[in-house]
Amino acid sequence: MSYGARMSEPDDISPDAGGDAEGETHGAPGARPVVRLKPRAGRRFFAGAPWVYQDELVLDRRTRKIPPGSVAELQDAERRPLGLVAVNLESGIAGRLLDRDPQAEIDGAWLRGRIARALALRERLFEAPFYRLVHAEADGLPGLIVDRFGDACVMQPNAAWADARADEIAQALREVAGVGTVMLNAGSRARGLEGLQGETRLLSGALDGPVEVSMNGAVYLADLVGGQKTGLYFDQRPNHAFVARLCRGARVLDVFSHVGGFALAALAGGAASALAVDGSEPALALASEGAKRSGFGERFSARRADAFDALGELGEAGERFDVVICDPPAFAPAKSALQNGLRAYARIARLAAGVTAPGGYLTLCSCSHAADPAAFRAACVRGIEQAGREAQLLRFGEAGPDHPEHPGLPETSYLKALTFRLDG
Amino acid sequence: MSYGARMSEPDDISPDAGGDAEGETHGAPGARPVVRLKPRAGRRFFAGAPWVYQDELVLDRRTRKIPPGSVAELQDAERRPLGLVAVNLESGIAGRLLDRDPQAEIDGAWLRGRIARALALRERLFEAPFYRLVHAEADGLPGLIVDRFGDACVMQPNAAWADARADEIAQALREVAGVGTVMLNAGSRARGLEGLQGETRLLSGALDGPVEVSMNGAVYLADLVGGQKTGLYFDQRPNHAFVARLCRGARVLDVFSHVGGFALAALAGGAASALAVDGSEPALALASEGAKRSGFGERFSARRADAFDALGELGEAGERFDVVICDPPAFAPAKSALQNGLRAYARIARLAAGVTAPGGYLTLCSCSHAADPAAFRAACVRGIEQAGREAQLLRFGEAGPDHPEHPGLPETSYLKALTFRLDG
Repeated sequence: MSYGARMSEPDDISPDAGGDAEGETHGAPGARPVVRLKPRAGRRFFAGAPWVYQDELVLDRRTRKIPPGSVAELQDAERRPLGLVAVNLESGIAGRLLDRDPQAEIDGAWLRGRIARALALRERLFEAPFYRLVHAEADGLPGLIVDRFGDACVMQPNAAWADARADEIAQALREVAGVGTVMLNAGSRARGLEGLQGETRLLSGALDGPVEVSMNGAVYLADLVGGQKTGLYFDQRPNHAFVARLCRGARVLDVFSHVGGFALAALAGGAASALAVDGSEPALALASEGAKRSGFGERFSARRADAFDALGELGEAGERFDVVICDPPAFAPAKSALQNGLRAYARIARLAAGVTAPGGYLTLCSCSHAADPAAFRAACVRGIEQAGREAQLLRFGEAGPDHPEHPGLPETSYLKALTFRLDG
Repeated sequence: MSYGARMSEPDDISPDAGGDAEGETHGAPGARPVVRLKPRAGRRFFAGAPWVYQDELVLDRRTRKIPPGSVAELQDAERRPLGLVAVNLESGIAGRLLDRDPQAEIDGAWLRGRIARALALRERLFEAPFYRLVHAEADGLPGLIVDRFGDACVMQPNAAWADARADEIAQALREVAGVGTVMLNAGSRARGLEGLQGETRLLSGALDGPVEVSMNGAVYLADLVGGQKTGLYFDQRPNHAFVARLCRGARVLDVFSHVGGFALAALAGGAASALAVDGSEPALALASEGAKRSGFGERFSARRADAFDALGELGEAGERFDVVICDPPAFAPAKSALQNGLRAYARIARLAAGVTAPGGYLTLCSCSHAADPAAFRAACVRGIEQAGREAQLLRFGEAGPDHPEHPGLPETSYLKALTFRLDG
């Protein structure tokens, strides 16, 4: 099954892959391999980022032989230890910091400690066990994504070290979070950048159809087996909640709806009706089933269509909605696609503004890393102007707090959700 | 009375004041004055900003005689009408767009229409009538700030046109929002940039002591008469709410507390205790009275002190708090103060991280326009590192949606509230 909505991952970051460079030979005295920075290399690492790039390392014969996913001691050019990194010379990000303590053991106890720390944050934030449990580098588990759906976890080991230890991680998840079912999802684009193979598979427990998730007063259905994503976009939760506040009595249009993220929250917030548009029949079937289980009845409807086509047709038919949301896939997944991506965002904004009622509310989202907040905002404003509308910007939303950010990696901030009110 | 906490205003923007320039003489055919752009001037205006700068206008003798606050027709260099602007040649922002329709009448009906539109948004967003009702340019009322406290409004007419029409605006507020009491607050720094005189005064109704405001489950007391602000920081409401989610059972420290913004929300969220620190005795008295009326009893305490001193002393005494918030005044109110301001923010971050318990939460705020989000974020991260702590960034909050932003004025975005979790 493949969903029509967003397909990008917060971990889909193309590093600035460096070239190859020969360095001096160096010996690793202990059993643990050593990788060493070239002189004056590691600028970002020393500024706080948990990454070293391939072209920053001395790539002698011994280093080249380190298998992807190995744990190595990182040393500076003067052989002083800097910590432990997970090595993958097939990736532009050749070293991912695991621990600043070079003596640490990266074992089950270490994994359990990191997961327990991540869990403590989510248990403070949320009443029910539905959230992103592990958000990669920011949770001290580089490249590892884990979404939790009650008794089940879906993990994406998108770095070689985590892929190699998938079973050990699953075991730690069961022990710390008390889950029974662990899925390994191998659908992320980020795996390609790491040279990882393998397929989506069940590591433990059982799954019997889609899982019910209560969020913002609605019931969602998440398919943890199919699809490129883990089943649901937890990242949009605060943005769903904000839009729902605007929806009392409103006619709502949710474009790129996936399993009904904004549409169901809108109905829970009192919307008179919500139309979900998506290119994927399976996603819309889950949205419809969610609406049914939420008790929304005839207030929910779904249309399978290309989003651009649907917006154009609704506009020409003179249809107007009080609240419109567009949460498209990443139009600018990489820097090379940025200009085309921004044009696509502006086009979406123009078409969506055209079907927004006078005095109505328009929410435009982007999950493209390459489109920074200012650039995305400008593209939205341009599109709204092209539609001949004036606007106020009410809110600039981002991913929820179960998607924390590593302070040294501001570029991993990816989600943008802008809510405008259009002229009356 | 002067409060120790934040003193900046969202409208405290120093325009890039332009120089003087002589232009050709031009005639205004009708009764309404005309101001004209120089050839190729008005770059920002044509890109969507509602401002024209003094050095963009033809400053002939007739133009120079236009009294501050007059409504004039703005024309391009070819004498084509562009709309109506409020003129103030004593300000760097010499023209503020009132209406794109050059035929509009800026009268009571026009004011009522703009206020009604602003009110409709707030009534959709909030259950109770406590909010920023008018947020200047973004609400189509340039330079005008109105905060609503139930039956009372506090207005800051920080542009000459609004100052000249203060009574007319107050009348429109009474008619549209149904309020009885209207205060004119003349304490904003922005008035100086506009060359405005006058004092804080009651325009209608009566005020009998501080006003009770229910927000995020707590009762706040706002003094609408004293102080440089309108009495309360509505802008922080969503950030108060987020921090409150972290506070169950926590020991909380709220530095630059003003009337208890974060502290009372934290207690409403289940904090075990909250200590409010501020330099102002009157502000802390209001915070204490709010805590009392909220029923927080002994869980609330207050300390009058310089924030830097207090943080240093608490740190040296080994005091640690589970949740720490610092919401200081604008350390970088203008670009000239940016570097010193960022150093002050980093210092606050370092001191505050020093009193944050292992695994605790630290929220750092800035209301400085000049400190952009990336620069403020970097200053916070630097300070936390200097304290020897590692962190996750959980959330980047901004002003609430009753503080909308004009799409053409991204620089009017001013509030930043970053919440970190520190290492365990």
